[in-house]
Amino acid sequence: MDYVNLAQKRRFSDEKMQKVPVFASEQMFFDQYCLKPGQWQKVHSHADADKIYVVLEGEALFEIGGEKELLAEGMAVFAPAGVAHGVRNDSDSQLVLLVTMAPKPA
Amino acid sequence: MDYVNLAQKRRFSDEKMQKVPVFASEQMFFDQYCLKPGQWQKVHSHADADKIYVVLEGEALFEIGGEKELLAEGMAVFAPAGVAHGVRNDSDSQLVLLVTMAPKPA
Repeated sequence: MDYVNLAQKRRFSDEKMQKVPVFASEQMFFDQYCLKPGQWQKVHSHADADKIYVVLEGEALFEIGGEKELLAEGMAVFAPAGVAHGVRNDSDSQLVLLVTMAPKPA
Repeated sequence: MDYVNLAQKRRFSDEKMQKVPVFASEQMFFDQYCLKPGQWQKVHSHADADKIYVVLEGEALFEIGGEKELLAEGMAVFAPAGVAHGVRNDSDSQLVLLVTMAPKPA
């Protein structure tokens, strides 16, 4: 059985946000994003893939479709295909996001 | 922006496991499954869709591809398309699973 301990699949870098793959298939990506204070994923979009972020630890400043929201642990947010989205850790603590995207972008 | 507080999207029933939709699109489902002690999702499979479960609260007895594993909070498990999978709450506490499936089954 293919299972993982999410806490053991975290990796932070002083350089930039780390994307840590958890599961991947032809249908979807399932990653953890690990952001130290001040790190970010720049605003971008995927023409055909929907993305969902879940805040597992810390506080995330999301920008999706031009709107900004600060979301804490236990919040989930949807970024539909074609809509510009990004996230920033503007807090003093580390941030861990669970991120799923489908279908897997080409 | 389309965001939700996962803790507020939980619903338990004495009758059976509750599937609570969080987000849904043409590409994927994203739900919370809420199981009281003794409740279960029967073993089944989807020909074309992959499923990932994350244990958000409690302890889950998974059966995937004929193997059984008891997984606690913070564990994630992959059930590939075509592989029989199910889950049971054999504990004395409530169980909450985050479940994502792609693509959305027809």
